Amino acid sequence: MRVEIISIGSEMLAPEGVDTNSLYLTRELNRLGLEVQLKTIVGDAKEILVDTFKSALHRSELIIATGGIGPTADDVTKQALCRAIGRQMTLDEEVLAYLKDRFASRGKPFPPHFQQQAMIPQGSLVLKNPVGTAPGVWVTENQKGVILLPGVPQEMEYVFQNSVLLRLREMVKQSQILDRRVFKVVGLTESEVDQLLKEEIAELKGNISLLAGWGEIEICLKFRGRDKGETESIFDQYEALLRQKLGSHLLGKGEVTLEGVVGALLREKGATLAVAESCTGGLLGSRITDISGSSDYFNRGIVAYSNVAKIEELGVPQELIESHGAVSPEVAKAMAEGVRRLSRTDYGIGITGIAGPTGGTPDKPVGLVYIGVASEAGTRVERFILLGSRKKIKFQSAQKALEMLREFLLPE
Amino acid sequence: MRVEIISIGSEMLAPEGVDTNSLYLTRELNRLGLEVQLKTIVGDAKEILVDTFKSALHRSELIIATGGIGPTADDVTKQALCRAIGRQMTLDEEVLAYLKDRFASRGKPFPPHFQQQAMIPQGSLVLKNPVGTAPGVWVTENQKGVILLPGVPQEMEYVFQNSVLLRLREMVKQSQILDRRVFKVVGLTESEVDQLLKEEIAELKGNISLLAGWGEIEICLKFRGRDKGETESIFDQYEALLRQKLGSHLLGKGEVTLEGVVGALLREKGATLAVAESCTGGLLGSRITDISGSSDYFNRGIVAYSNVAKIEELGVPQELIESHGAVSPEVAKAMAEGVRRLSRTDYGIGITGIAGPTGGTPDKPVGLVYIGVASEAGTRVERFILLGSRKKIKFQSAQKALEMLREFLLPE
Repeated sequence: MRVEIISIGSEMLAPEGVDTNSLYLTRELNRLGLEVQLKTIVGDAKEILVDTFKSALHRSELIIATGGIGPTADDVTKQALCRAIGRQMTLDEEVLAYLKDRFASRGKPFPPHFQQQAMIPQGSLVLKNPVGTAPGVWVTENQKGVILLPGVPQEMEYVFQNSVLLRLREMVKQSQILDRRVFKVVGLTESEVDQLLKEEIAELKGNISLLAGWGEIEICLKFRGRDKGETESIFDQYEALLRQKLGSHLLGKGEVTLEGVVGALLREKGATLAVAESCTGGLLGSRITDISGSSDYFNRGIVAYSNVAKIEELGVPQELIESHGAVSPEVAKAMAEGVRRLSRTDYGIGITGIAGPTGGTPDKPVGLVYIGVASEAGTRVERFILLGSRKKIKFQSAQKALEMLREFLLPE
Repeated sequence: MRVEIISIGSEMLAPEGVDTNSLYLTRELNRLGLEVQLKTIVGDAKEILVDTFKSALHRSELIIATGGIGPTADDVTKQALCRAIGRQMTLDEEVLAYLKDRFASRGKPFPPHFQQQAMIPQGSLVLKNPVGTAPGVWVTENQKGVILLPGVPQEMEYVFQNSVLLRLREMVKQSQILDRRVFKVVGLTESEVDQLLKEEIAELKGNISLLAGWGEIEICLKFRGRDKGETESIFDQYEALLRQKLGSHLLGKGEVTLEGVVGALLREKGATLAVAESCTGGLLGSRITDISGSSDYFNRGIVAYSNVAKIEELGVPQELIESHGAVSPEVAKAMAEGVRRLSRTDYGIGITGIAGPTGGTPDKPVGLVYIGVASEAGTRVERFILLGSRKKIKFQSAQKALEMLREFLLPE
């Protein structure tokens, strides 16, 4: 079945206009085994809408449109569909009664222009919307389905879940579902992952894709199967293969985060952590505490932004800063050990670097970062040269610190 | 001139697929005074592509397509366009020579399938792409323009800036430009802004829109004018009006951030700041240090996540925590004053709260946050009940702290 989505609303044609409704619908349709073939994003211009519906009905068997079914004058989706398929609009008494009730129960008069909300394309099914005033409709035309949903995301989701999903599932009765699993990889670049997996990528063509994020690479696998059980078992098989190829660089699947994995490892070991940050300014502590329950293992953070704070708070010797500079392996080590001693924790992390865009020198360029991880067994310091904006350098510094700690915590 | 964008690539039809190229192009087109009327997002299926080009040529005078012009078998954009307009592809010797050179200069043999990159729709203009291997093309058909650009964002931007922009500007020669200005508002909800501006919103219909973000409301104004000078003067007029209606809630325009405004105020006053964070875990310090040059006024941060850290690092009396609890106005005050004393700064901030989703009690629910701001003149503590996820509560806590400090810093 060919499926397409039409998103209606001028705001989505602005430079900031991301159409989130279609992403939600795509996820839900994929779960039913349906792939979206085409998306159209269009304003509230009636002519273009009529044309868009005509083209869509020519191409696809199922069309889901969102937006433009509100009570204001620029909401013309229903009218445009009616024009495209040559139908009239009729008043639905049940919807009108619901709307009047809704206003009455709030002690408000019924605004006449809300009558428009009860006008429905002739012969169509009304999809109730108890969380708003714009009911959806399901129109069948030449055995093709056109579903109009509200544009407000919360209302769109409600109507889809409660009035569309079951009917679609009936209609689809596909023998196969389309399922996806996303894996996250840390500590490798996109081209390194690409190299390591080149055979698999060639073999899985169309079913695998790589996506580079900030400090992480996502591997998306997509398979069809009879049911969830079958696709899960395919995914498990590939997961084992990926683990073999990527080793500990494979962080996990789905919504897994590095701070979550590190937190779980600390908890498992009953170990505690404290951090001393300079260039990251508190970002590492903030990421660690994004995990609910992190107070079980995270003791404290010191953002020693000034040199005097490094000396006073962390006991970094003044001479060390004077002889090596605040951005140096010696200071990163002293920060990590200082915060660990101070907090009596099992692990201590120290980060010092130059986040830029100013403050670099030929010797110590923007993006130079030293990270120390201290434990009972000693302290390891690494040097990084990170690229990008100030925020990106801060993020990658926190990422590298978490990656280093993860290596300390992973079983041999 | 009717303009539309076609984004080509199956990855954009996935549930995570945000089409960023079209957002970039929309911004650039708006700057030329052109509005995008429609966007189509489509996979690499040739039939659908042919159909998409036909519809677009029927509707619009200018069509910009990105993606699907690479060297692999699933790149069929050029072929689909040729089919839609009934043209042949021809080999462009100049492009072929460039490609062969490119491989030779890297000491690599020329892969035969790259010849496809030199195949160009007959009679079209080649748009050079020195940052990649896929040149763009500009096809004119019945006085309508179709521009094909690479899908890789960096290449798309390069070709657009270097080979498209000037020609488009010539072509457009619009007597008017379309200009936008965005204002940011803090400390008010979307409906409060809506209420305060209801007359203006009614009057500016179509030219104004509100967008609620995390802890900030954006007001977008959009106007046409002869030139930048004219639109700027309209915007300045409305800015004065907004300032009058919204007072100090109007944070500023464009890319302004609360941390940037607070930083500039601190710098202006020659004042310094230190922060003590509990539930925000370092996020406040991280946001403050997102501003380049923040070391001039930001001295240090203490993430006193555990009670023992609050006592040891900030000198919060143990009895205070025992009698009032760690999440209390008394502890927020002691944290703010403690970190200010310790750092000898002009201002100190203390944040303590329950970020959730667990850890709440009937007395002290999830989202309860106390924030103290200490200065020479004394300490002010406020109580907030914040809603949302753990991350959202952390963000809003940092936001409220910055808003409180801003009030201390604003001239009377």
